Amino acid sequence: MFFDGRVRMNLHEMTWEEFESFVKKYGVVVIPVGSTEQHGPHLPLGTDTIVVSEIARKLAEKIDIVVMPSVAWGYKPQPGSSGGALFPGTCSLDGATLIELVRDLLRELIRNKASKIILLDGHYENSLFLNEGVDLGLRDSGCPSDVKVVIARWFDLVKPEEYENIFSGFKGVGLEHAANLETALMLELRPELVNINKIRSDKPERNPPYQVLPPTSNLIPKTGVLTEIGTVSAHQGALIIQIIIERLINLIKQEFNSN
Amino acid sequence: MFFDGRVRMNLHEMTWEEFESFVKKYGVVVIPVGSTEQHGPHLPLGTDTIVVSEIARKLAEKIDIVVMPSVAWGYKPQPGSSGGALFPGTCSLDGATLIELVRDLLRELIRNKASKIILLDGHYENSLFLNEGVDLGLRDSGCPSDVKVVIARWFDLVKPEEYENIFSGFKGVGLEHAANLETALMLELRPELVNINKIRSDKPERNPPYQVLPPTSNLIPKTGVLTEIGTVSAHQGALIIQIIIERLINLIKQEFNSN
Amino acid sequence: MFFDGRVRMNLHEMTWEEFESFVKKYGVVVIPVGSTEQHGPHLPLGTDTIVVSEIARKLAEKIDIVVMPSVAWGYKPQPGSSGGALFPGTCSLDGATLIELVRDLLRELIRNKASKIILLDGHYENSLFLNEGVDLGLRDSGCPSDVKVVIARWFDLVKPEEYENIFSGFKGVGLEHAANLETALMLELRPELVNINKIRSDKPERNPPYQVLPPTSNLIPKTGVLTEIGTVSAHQGALIIQIIIERLINLIKQEFNSN
Amino acid sequence: MFFDGRVRMNLHEMTWEEFESFVKKYGVVVIPVGSTEQHGPHLPLGTDTIVVSEIARKLAEKIDIVVMPSVAWGYKPQPGSSGGALFPGTCSLDGATLIELVRDLLRELIRNKASKIILLDGHYENSLFLNEGVDLGLRDSGCPSDVKVVIARWFDLVKPEEYENIFSGFKGVGLEHAANLETALMLELRPELVNINKIRSDKPERNPPYQVLPPTSNLIPKTGVLTEIGTVSAHQGALIIQIIIERLINLIKQEFNSN
Amino acid sequence: MFFDGRVRMNLHEMTWEEFESFVKKYGVVVIPVGSTEQHGPHLPLGTDTIVVSEIARKLAEKIDIVVMPSVAWGYKPQPGSSGGALFPGTCSLDGATLIELVRDLLRELIRNKASKIILLDGHYENSLFLNEGVDLGLRDSGCPSDVKVVIARWFDLVKPEEYENIFSGFKGVGLEHAANLETALMLELRPELVNINKIRSDKPERNPPYQVLPPTSNLIPKTGVLTEIGTVSAHQGALIIQIIIERLINLIKQEFNSN
Amino acid sequence: MFFDGRVRMNLHEMTWEEFESFVKKYGVVVIPVGSTEQHGPHLPLGTDTIVVSEIARKLAEKIDIVVMPSVAWGYKPQPGSSGGALFPGTCSLDGATLIELVRDLLRELIRNKASKIILLDGHYENSLFLNEGVDLGLRDSGCPSDVKVVIARWFDLVKPEEYENIFSGFKGVGLEHAANLETALMLELRPELVNINKIRSDKPERNPPYQVLPPTSNLIPKTGVLTEIGTVSAHQGALIIQIIIERLINLIKQEFNSN
Repeated sequence: MFFDGRVRMNLHEMTWEEFESFVKKYGVVVIPVGSTEQHGPHLPLGTDTIVVSEIARKLAEKIDIVVMPSVAWGYKPQPGSSGGALFPGTCSLDGATLIELVRDLLRELIRNKASKIILLDGHYENSLFLNEGVDLGLRDSGCPSDVKVVIARWFDLVKPEEYENIFSGFKGVGLEHAANLETALMLELRPELVNINKIRSDKPERNPPYQVLPPTSNLIPKTGVLTEIGTVSAHQGALIIQIIIERLINLIKQEFNSN
Repeated sequence: MFFDGRVRMNLHEMTWEEFESFVKKYGVVVIPVGSTEQHGPHLPLGTDTIVVSEIARKLAEKIDIVVMPSVAWGYKPQPGSSGGALFPGTCSLDGATLIELVRDLLRELIRNKASKIILLDGHYENSLFLNEGVDLGLRDSGCPSDVKVVIARWFDLVKPEEYENIFSGFKGVGLEHAANLETALMLELRPELVNINKIRSDKPERNPPYQVLPPTSNLIPKTGVLTEIGTVSAHQGALIIQIIIERLINLIKQEFNSN
Repeated sequence: MFFDGRVRMNLHEMTWEEFESFVKKYGVVVIPVGSTEQHGPHLPLGTDTIVVSEIARKLAEKIDIVVMPSVAWGYKPQPGSSGGALFPGTCSLDGATLIELVRDLLRELIRNKASKIILLDGHYENSLFLNEGVDLGLRDSGCPSDVKVVIARWFDLVKPEEYENIFSGFKGVGLEHAANLETALMLELRPELVNINKIRSDKPERNPPYQVLPPTSNLIPKTGVLTEIGTVSAHQGALIIQIIIERLINLIKQEFNSN
Repeated sequence: MFFDGRVRMNLHEMTWEEFESFVKKYGVVVIPVGSTEQHGPHLPLGTDTIVVSEIARKLAEKIDIVVMPSVAWGYKPQPGSSGGALFPGTCSLDGATLIELVRDLLRELIRNKASKIILLDGHYENSLFLNEGVDLGLRDSGCPSDVKVVIARWFDLVKPEEYENIFSGFKGVGLEHAANLETALMLELRPELVNINKIRSDKPERNPPYQVLPPTSNLIPKTGVLTEIGTVSAHQGALIIQIIIERLINLIKQEFNSN
Repeated sequence: MFFDGRVRMNLHEMTWEEFESFVKKYGVVVIPVGSTEQHGPHLPLGTDTIVVSEIARKLAEKIDIVVMPSVAWGYKPQPGSSGGALFPGTCSLDGATLIELVRDLLRELIRNKASKIILLDGHYENSLFLNEGVDLGLRDSGCPSDVKVVIARWFDLVKPEEYENIFSGFKGVGLEHAANLETALMLELRPELVNINKIRSDKPERNPPYQVLPPTSNLIPKTGVLTEIGTVSAHQGALIIQIIIERLINLIKQEFNSN
Repeated sequence: MFFDGRVRMNLHEMTWEEFESFVKKYGVVVIPVGSTEQHGPHLPLGTDTIVVSEIARKLAEKIDIVVMPSVAWGYKPQPGSSGGALFPGTCSLDGATLIELVRDLLRELIRNKASKIILLDGHYENSLFLNEGVDLGLRDSGCPSDVKVVIARWFDLVKPEEYENIFSGFKGVGLEHAANLETALMLELRPELVNINKIRSDKPERNPPYQVLPPTSNLIPKTGVLTEIGTVSAHQGALIIQIIIERLINLIKQEFNSN
């Protein structure tokens, strides 16, 4: 608890003294990593970032963590996995830039005595660029034996059968770009940003089991929505969030308490 | 005005269709650039980022602009200008990382048909790294003749005599790290984040007209505050904000309307 | 058909005149991309590279393609997906190195008038580093409109139900490192390199749905084998190879003939 | 001797256990480095790579070494030294890419406890890029005092008088691109890849003692052959190979046994 | 004093034995850093480099230092601070190149046992790129505790009131590109390089408190001179030089003798 | 001829107007590239740079050229070719830094309408790093068809028989580090920098036809001198210089007049 009786969770809202004592006492630092990417005609460009930021906020309400400012740009969306970079508003980083950004943040956190770090990833294509950033950050820091980093993608924390229970006819996370799952989450987390009247189902003409670059027009649906959207509700989003928060709390207990 | 009768200003809250029509119609995109840096025992680590984010928000309430997510990390603070990197919580980027991050954002915005771009900088040491990022972003984009980029540091938009009128005994922006100016601004913008009881004056033992690396302990005050803090009020912050907003509105008219 | 009545398929075995006429006539160039990575006590370190090299060779026997020398090093294996970098003999590239290597090869092939290029990937962690290399190679080449690149991972070309038909109790490609699938393939392709007496089942103590760095000992099985190995035969490998070759032939027809 | 009674020499054909015991026992690891470069109308594009790969293979038959997969791409051929980059099929790496590739391989081998490393180079222009890769690999590894690296270019291992004895009228290695020396070697090593009917002599119009970039047409012969080709035989190639193998065996004894 | 009875001060004129003994005995190494940049119609392109080189030479006549060869290229001039990159003859480095050049020099000097290093900067835009080069050079060297680096810009060593005493109507260093201050210095240091007949006053049409990229024509005066030039004399230059030399001598005493 | 009746040849001594008219009229720009490297107990660390700078100066007295400031740092000296990096005072650049420095200078010169560029190299190990810098500079500039770059190493411009005529018992340029050739040149060009009393012959214990990294002590002579020094005179240096200047004048006529 801080000077004004209120718990601070955001690194950017703490003073350096508060950060110092907080890290000493609890130690877990969470870096939400999202993207700036088209999410169909009904979800905002910041969907990936908003989702991880909100999950981190809700987690911080339950357990003592420091939340870093979100990384609001991710790697380039690929056709077939999340809709393609060719829609207005998508702003992505080169792979090397994302790697170096994560490397710098890791190195700085380690220099600041943080030893329990979670990258909470919400964008499919960030993937191994985050691993490489973490690996280089550890290497640059001399691979300190007491530092442990977890890279968790929120959509991997929910089990397939849980998805299927919550969304009838669920076709797998891989096709869920700007579709049922993300819409339900945004309805729960930031309903005022969901343009309900514009929800519409779509899908690519074809979805081959390989990638084609540069993307041809028949690989990416016109709307940017990758699959059919059924009846979606905030309640579904709430159920998903509940599972993720629970899993993250367990993750922290398992990986960091026994450190 | 968007679908729900509310103006959207944040790129992350727009859909791709909204972004596309907004950029076509108004076109000015603002990227706030801050830092994660110690700001004394009474101001939060995110002060630089919070100030530029809030200025951008207030500007967007007056004039049609798209606001990008803030860049929340800046270049390494130097002793003598803003207090040194050695306080817990300061998380900075290598120069090359900041350059590449800005280059990527510029290149992506230009690819997205944005041609009127403002980097609103709130961290002294970001400086020419932003210029280089912009220069490379333009070069990578083939130096399109219709693109214009302004790099504005909010503290340069206020005239010395204006500072002196508002703050009695003002010693210049260069020494104002975590002191009167930033405290007044935060009291106006985010008073709940100012730890008033912890405000205290400080200064380095010596302040030579050159830089010493690595910093020696007599160059950096223990608190991280670079100068004496007098009586500071939200009202002073409000006056400064008013000037900055007015200058930014004029800047936009002058630089972009006659484009 | 070349000077000595024998078809050449390997770029390294062609003269520059042969390459020129071959690319003009048929045009498809295949770059196999593998790794140098532990594959348990019974499979060689080059398994990923050998598999893609052999598939490319078999494909070239059926259809006119030029096969580049294989990229014999890949990105760092991660715990949880393919066994960890910590076994002797694993030699991996930094992410940036792999990106730049692929970028250079793409740029050079495009300079050489190749416009139909397939990266045939056999290592799980190469993943988006290949996409980025291709993206940068295209960007550096001015994004020529007639160039098309396919990134195909052989294990994605076989359908889940096909895997299940061939391997009883198949637990998914994700756990198949150095296990049933790769053993069957190597028994078919290079039986003399399979140390049958050393085959043994193994699995990690735990397999969480997130990644932990640096890897802890309970995440990686001692042998480097990620799952239980049942009865495996060259016949199973032959069936898989047959499917992959067929899919690749169709891929070439679909993506490049209609170019 | 390994499990199947056959000596393994190729790192890619060893299991991780075999690699571990082999390196512990003998320790010398050889990385052949070649190129993908035009070699006239009668020699294949992979000549440089094939020659170093074959030399490494023959060496491994005589002495216990581990042979890494060959680096099949080299630095850009220059006019005047090996024929120019402008022939179809030549695929080269940027200098920085080659440096980083070698640096990564060195760093990984050192991490894997290899301490006796030979880069066997077969491409004139790889030159100091290999030295820099090795220097950075050692630096990144903390310059371990027990690691020793040799960079040997096969054509430097034969003495001028030996060349002159074997090839009458020998004009020096510098002009021997795709000419007598390489043709003889390929006739010995891979005769089926030599297009004997296409052998023809050629030379550049002029050969100034400086370099001109970009290359003008009178600096590079039309065929890519840099000098006159006399009567060439496999026997000559065999004599050269014999000398090289002998020198390499001595090199290993001299540099590594007394380590 | 060296072998021929003459003091050597330039590193490039010392033998390695002299350098070794000199650094052991006195230790201060000065690296002058300038630029290649337009300086109006009357001052040469090398003005920034010439000024720092001459200051270093004069300093070396008073006190024992080793002077490195000058870095003759700097970061890109910006409109508003020193006149713009668009004049013929301006040759600048990318930010990353300047950073790496300084990093390499620092790392090499530290490897050579130099521990008292001064970067004497004469070009406004070199700025924090030098800090970053120094920071990386120190980091790469393991941050040795006995190494101290000073970055001194000569124009910051003179106090505002001293400028005003020497130049009547002085408008601040920021506007002094190719104007009174630099002309006076060059008249004192290298009068034969000042084209007196071509001196003329100029100024940009407007001088906004922010930066515009790419520069518009009304931001940069046609001559490249940023302000009005009054009566300028070598005497004024001599007074400035005297102050700077005195300050540098004090700086060396203060920062390095008490090391 | 310039304003003061004196010919300017150094880019750093020209105004931007002079540079513009000079390049338009004559056009040849020369960049001397040297090193900072031990040259035995009798020659200064800057020998390589001094030699190329002096050659450029003498050339400029005969023919109209613009001389850039010399690049005073080169690539790391290697054992076996020029004496090893391990002597105090040797300050070298990483390969990538040298490449980028040359690339930037090329790109800037081309932007400045220079189309006839000579890199005059005086340091053996700069070698292909210069080629790569030039190649990237041309590529970044869009490979303009009217730009031609020559890379000339002064020691390659003299024929073997000329060396043998001037120096009796000449053993080849490769062994001439800090020996007869460089001593003679320095006696002619800057005799006051030659410490005649310290001249002494030396040689490495062994000189294998391959490279060993890191260098072992028996590969580098204690003095840094690579071969025996006979009777050396300024007259010999003058003869060499005469040949080089003549060759450079011819080079300029041949390569650039017919442009």
